[in-house]
Amino acid sequence: MKKSTPAIKRIKPDLPGGFRDYAPADAIARQEMMDTIRKTFEGFGFDPLQTSSVQRTEVLTGGDADSGKIIFNIKGSQEKKSDSSLRFDLTVPLARFVADNPDLPKPFKRYQIGTVWRGERQQQGRYREFIQADVDIVGSSSIDADAEIAMIIYTVFKNLGIGCFVINYNNRKMLNMLPDFAGFSKNKLWDALRIIDKRDKIGEDGISEELQKMFTKTVADNILRFLSPSSLDILQGKGFTEYGEIATMFCQNTELDLDAVRKIFKLERYLVRGLSYYTGSVFEVLLPDAPEIGSVAGGGRYDGLVTQFTGQNIPAVGASIGIDRLYAAMEKLGTLKKKQTLTQVLILQLDVNLKNEYLAMAQELRNAGIATALYIGDDMSFQAQLAYAVKKEIPYAVIWGEREKKRGVVAIKNLAGREQKEIPRDDLLRYFRK
Amino acid sequence: MKKSTPAIKRIKPDLPGGFRDYAPADAIARQEMMDTIRKTFEGFGFDPLQTSSVQRTEVLTGGDADSGKIIFNIKGSQEKKSDSSLRFDLTVPLARFVADNPDLPKPFKRYQIGTVWRGERQQQGRYREFIQADVDIVGSSSIDADAEIAMIIYTVFKNLGIGCFVINYNNRKMLNMLPDFAGFSKNKLWDALRIIDKRDKIGEDGISEELQKMFTKTVADNILRFLSPSSLDILQGKGFTEYGEIATMFCQNTELDLDAVRKIFKLERYLVRGLSYYTGSVFEVLLPDAPEIGSVAGGGRYDGLVTQFTGQNIPAVGASIGIDRLYAAMEKLGTLKKKQTLTQVLILQLDVNLKNEYLAMAQELRNAGIATALYIGDDMSFQAQLAYAVKKEIPYAVIWGEREKKRGVVAIKNLAGREQKEIPRDDLLRYFRK
Repeated sequence: MKKSTPAIKRIKPDLPGGFRDYAPADAIARQEMMDTIRKTFEGFGFDPLQTSSVQRTEVLTGGDADSGKIIFNIKGSQEKKSDSSLRFDLTVPLARFVADNPDLPKPFKRYQIGTVWRGERQQQGRYREFIQADVDIVGSSSIDADAEIAMIIYTVFKNLGIGCFVINYNNRKMLNMLPDFAGFSKNKLWDALRIIDKRDKIGEDGISEELQKMFTKTVADNILRFLSPSSLDILQGKGFTEYGEIATMFCQNTELDLDAVRKIFKLERYLVRGLSYYTGSVFEVLLPDAPEIGSVAGGGRYDGLVTQFTGQNIPAVGASIGIDRLYAAMEKLGTLKKKQTLTQVLILQLDVNLKNEYLAMAQELRNAGIATALYIGDDMSFQAQLAYAVKKEIPYAVIWGEREKKRGVVAIKNLAGREQKEIPRDDLLRYFRK
Repeated sequence: MKKSTPAIKRIKPDLPGGFRDYAPADAIARQEMMDTIRKTFEGFGFDPLQTSSVQRTEVLTGGDADSGKIIFNIKGSQEKKSDSSLRFDLTVPLARFVADNPDLPKPFKRYQIGTVWRGERQQQGRYREFIQADVDIVGSSSIDADAEIAMIIYTVFKNLGIGCFVINYNNRKMLNMLPDFAGFSKNKLWDALRIIDKRDKIGEDGISEELQKMFTKTVADNILRFLSPSSLDILQGKGFTEYGEIATMFCQNTELDLDAVRKIFKLERYLVRGLSYYTGSVFEVLLPDAPEIGSVAGGGRYDGLVTQFTGQNIPAVGASIGIDRLYAAMEKLGTLKKKQTLTQVLILQLDVNLKNEYLAMAQELRNAGIATALYIGDDMSFQAQLAYAVKKEIPYAVIWGEREKKRGVVAIKNLAGREQKEIPRDDLLRYFRK
């Protein structure tokens, strides 16, 4: 008696909201982008660190209810409860690692390109999993470190072939002078900064209005005067000096003169950046040709890195590049050369008796570093094999059957150019090496 | 009145059990290993696919309670409940992607190197997060595809510089003949296979004993006869033919003759591999010099890839390399060249007036592809700077002060060799390029 197969319940092949896959064409371009970033980081003397994706919830939130809101808790399906969560950035796991390894040689220069997760309530078009490329210098309070981070970011964007970008710079030490200068209580600084930070949304008039509501018209006017470019002459605070020092160092690392540097590495006195842990430099990268994307990278100095763990103040400065946002921007700007495949050559299987020779031919090309696929589909017709190469956008197909073998030649079809030519069999490797 | 700072609650910088970080020396070696694997996959014509780490729980378990046991559920901290979980392998997310993208050109050859999580109850020495490197061919039922996967695995281990490894091969089609050959009911096949799979633990005598308990002595003897090498001559089943075909193709992709191939690509008739979804070839890679590590890679043919989603049978064959296990094995075997840093040169900052020239020097080396750090620590003494280079194991330090500048030379300290020499300043780039 045959055992009857039970009806299989069909499962919908959907992803949860806020998550996505990257098919090969995107995965190839993203990988290339991340390779460029990694090489740039390594060129400046940074080494990789691979931290755990999962951290104790308390480590992630640091007792801060706000960051608790954006995390994903995780729980083994046989566990009753769990105090573990997925990291929402790469900085907290770095801080944990530094606190846990007090003997690291300082400055500790590390980079990490890794996935982070945000468990926020899902919104239209917002993703909950993305990749960040972080570069940080831990254990140096020198302005050289701030400058190095700024120059790395500059070099990354240059190396990615992005023609037009701006690094906006500001310094919390300057913003910290605001209460004294404008005449309001230090306790109100964060409230004032939150208003200043909204310039993109409400404009300078809106800021003035909100500041007047919070303080007086005089204070509001003072604040706006402080933030205006003309105040640069009257202010010689530490933060401003630091901007100048970084800009000077910038000139040595690029072919730009100081005027050109000031256009690409701009002092932007309205720049606050949300995170309260910044203590000096803050910066963000904007792409003027894709303003709707917002900032694609940002960072700054945060000298309280491990305070919550050890009570010490360890100076640190770093930056984070949002891979997914930057990728979306580059896609929009057309600076990506997308391709469907990394495969350069497809060898067709036209004669079953020649299989061993096809395999050897493939191996010959692979040994020379040429990515080579041997056709291994189920439909072995010539048409199907060629259609496969076309659909996959593989640049070259190698056609070699009994006839070609007898004549000592091999036919090479350039699929993009739609042209075909014969070359001597012995020239095959030389042909593709060029 | 000064606002008093509230006492900060100290948080322990611990990782949850079963998770770990990889410090730079390990991260560098692991990255190199993954680069080699990726290049090998790409050389064979495979493209990257990046699937979401988070999947619907139902997609992951497929209604199978057993796989439900090993997953981590995730939940945004503001959500009441969640039906999402972290992937426990890279195969299920691939199956989902294939089912969701029916128009992919077939065969679809993709690789993915990614993190997976297992939410099992924590055990001594078992990790709950690890990286897998998967390579699969979807949409080809040809034995060429099985052979290609086997050869890729072979090439990966060769390229990683692992001298001694064995690929054990078996075929489910052969094992499926067992009930007819040995005279027991097909329904009992899985029970028999579960016993056979335990050879490493209980030996052939133990297997015989357990089989006798389940069946009769005659059946048990038949089963063992079926599994013995001498049965090869009497069996000419499909699975055995497939082993021979793959072995023959192996010869074309390597310098090995058939005898040598049979030693490294071994027919191992006791090999079952746990997963019930395999339908043909199964294999696993063992390192005879590190037997306690177990299999470091494995795979096979599973022609029911998307059945649970679409009801179709799409043929597929693939393999998965366990990066963490393999890394542990390589560490043990001493085949890893570990280094503390990728930085090749440290430029010391010895004179504050020369800062701009140090920056330019660093940039000169970087532009030539030499990973160069400029010392930017807080302790600027010569001793501290040199000690940093030594501790970080940076191969070379560049020493250049006012005195060297006047004489037009630069001193280069080889920190491993503990030797120092002077070269003309203009030769600096040439020196490191060599």
